[in-house]
Amino acid sequence: MHQLIGEMFLAAFQNPLLETRHDSAVLEISTGGGDASSPPAFATRASQPPKIAFTTDSYVVRPLFFPGGDIGSMAVHGTVNDLAMAGARPVYLSIAFIIEEGLPMETLWRIVCSMRDAAKKCGVQIVTGDTKVVDKGKGDGVFINTSGIGVIEYDQKIAPQNVRAGDAILVSGDVGRHGMAIMAVREGLEFESKIESDSAPVHEMVFELLKAGIEIHCLRDLTRGGLTSALNEISEAANLAFLVEEKMIPVREDVHAACEILGLDPFQVACEGRFAAFVAAKDSERALQILRANPDGIGACAIGKVTDEHSPMVFLKSAIGARRILDMAGGEQLPRIC
Amino acid sequence: MHQLIGEMFLAAFQNPLLETRHDSAVLEISTGGGDASSPPAFATRASQPPKIAFTTDSYVVRPLFFPGGDIGSMAVHGTVNDLAMAGARPVYLSIAFIIEEGLPMETLWRIVCSMRDAAKKCGVQIVTGDTKVVDKGKGDGVFINTSGIGVIEYDQKIAPQNVRAGDAILVSGDVGRHGMAIMAVREGLEFESKIESDSAPVHEMVFELLKAGIEIHCLRDLTRGGLTSALNEISEAANLAFLVEEKMIPVREDVHAACEILGLDPFQVACEGRFAAFVAAKDSERALQILRANPDGIGACAIGKVTDEHSPMVFLKSAIGARRILDMAGGEQLPRIC
Repeated sequence: MHQLIGEMFLAAFQNPLLETRHDSAVLEISTGGGDASSPPAFATRASQPPKIAFTTDSYVVRPLFFPGGDIGSMAVHGTVNDLAMAGARPVYLSIAFIIEEGLPMETLWRIVCSMRDAAKKCGVQIVTGDTKVVDKGKGDGVFINTSGIGVIEYDQKIAPQNVRAGDAILVSGDVGRHGMAIMAVREGLEFESKIESDSAPVHEMVFELLKAGIEIHCLRDLTRGGLTSALNEISEAANLAFLVEEKMIPVREDVHAACEILGLDPFQVACEGRFAAFVAAKDSERALQILRANPDGIGACAIGKVTDEHSPMVFLKSAIGARRILDMAGGEQLPRIC
Repeated sequence: MHQLIGEMFLAAFQNPLLETRHDSAVLEISTGGGDASSPPAFATRASQPPKIAFTTDSYVVRPLFFPGGDIGSMAVHGTVNDLAMAGARPVYLSIAFIIEEGLPMETLWRIVCSMRDAAKKCGVQIVTGDTKVVDKGKGDGVFINTSGIGVIEYDQKIAPQNVRAGDAILVSGDVGRHGMAIMAVREGLEFESKIESDSAPVHEMVFELLKAGIEIHCLRDLTRGGLTSALNEISEAANLAFLVEEKMIPVREDVHAACEILGLDPFQVACEGRFAAFVAAKDSERALQILRANPDGIGACAIGKVTDEHSPMVFLKSAIGARRILDMAGGEQLPRIC
């Protein structure tokens, strides 16, 4: 269904910005361009118009509170991360709530406070908002939309189309934790240690990479559809095949166990604080060191590379050396994880 | 409830931008400001950073299609209009859908096409989007969030705090039509001629005013809570009393009749293509001529003026000359009109 809808939207709204299939749109803010016959009274013509990133996401996660996070902090992190994936510094956020009648005010207050704290931690300002209330039974507690604006300060093209043969593929930490934290709560699974969501902002790590001059070609957060979706989408957009090694992809023991019980593939389970980075091979080691210096990037690993084969395909080399195609056909999309 | 939530948000997210209580946040895009120790590789320092407007709104209107519009076109117009109310030229839009499982694909396609057409008509680009699907019974067909970015090209401060004693108060056309178009469908009211929503973009009218050098002090679209809410909110923010004349406020005959049947006050019913403008008295006549030259502004009228009384209060002078306070206490908020 998601794919169908995605194609519907691309067909209807086709423009070059949408077609990059990026997490954020990268835009130029030019003032006074339009109407030459009536120049604006107030024109700020920079020699080069500033570039911004713009993104939107709705959050419908259930339950609203889960180990390691809640819908509020997640809605801030998610949008901050989408901006970071375009190499932008997140600056401004909007928040829009759709509240189901009967939601306890204390619940809303907890969520609002969590958003405030997350925004502060991320260094972003919440500058505009909206609230709608729908009748009982026509919503589900609360849905949140956050849209965000970031400023692009580094002249580095970060986009799927920029991926090159030979690029190293890195992940910033262990995968599948957020989705399994949610599923464990929903299914009432008990483990010795609770699985906590990895929900976290990743923009600081991205800046560290940019500041160090790492040649980043593409970034993608491992949200809906997990690592598998991220790799397949980028492979398709770049029209290059990837080869990743199963044993290099970090998955925590308890996440693995929970996935086995529920018949899920950890590579397809959403994270909310992990991303994949495609970097020039020469910078791979240095990039890993930078990521690992950040508390949220301790588990960063190189998991594979971009081949020179011009076909959209992701190959997984198993522990025993067998090669299989890592595609999205197998697993069912987990509903309402984000 | 809206008021309570509003206060909760202001308390949690307090910052000067939110406190202007404007439809859009007006922001500066400065690049490379933050971290002096590590100047960005790519800095575009304009002598003056460009100003943008940023806004968000969710749309939960029921039914999805109504005389004169639908949730899709309305979601485009509403956000375009919020940007215009800050004097900004609407440029980029994001769209986020929350779809209830089971929504027919044809319905979604009709909405998507309506958004495409509305965006084209408004001259804005839809540059980023998101889709979430919730289980049946946890949504209501479809909810849409649109966020928007506009560019501020005129150096004119347009905000409630800029309203001055003596300002003329204009409305761009007859009020209450959108809300009554929805209510007439919901309540199954039949009139000789169908009441059609006034949903329309108003940004062209605003530009015409700006281009002509009209001294605009404040603009506000007459959405939730209608004319009454708009006037009261601005009066409060400006700390000035307004005096408006009942007989000058245009209300269509059929809208009036529908309001009487349902016990509603047309001044409190939402429009989706009308706005109030506070302009310097000297420019009032010229502004009206400009508005009336636009097909959507034919019914523009001057309805009153800002007094020099420093208290937040809106007085309504009735047809027989009596004065009463126009407050929001009387009427119940119509649910899910927008």
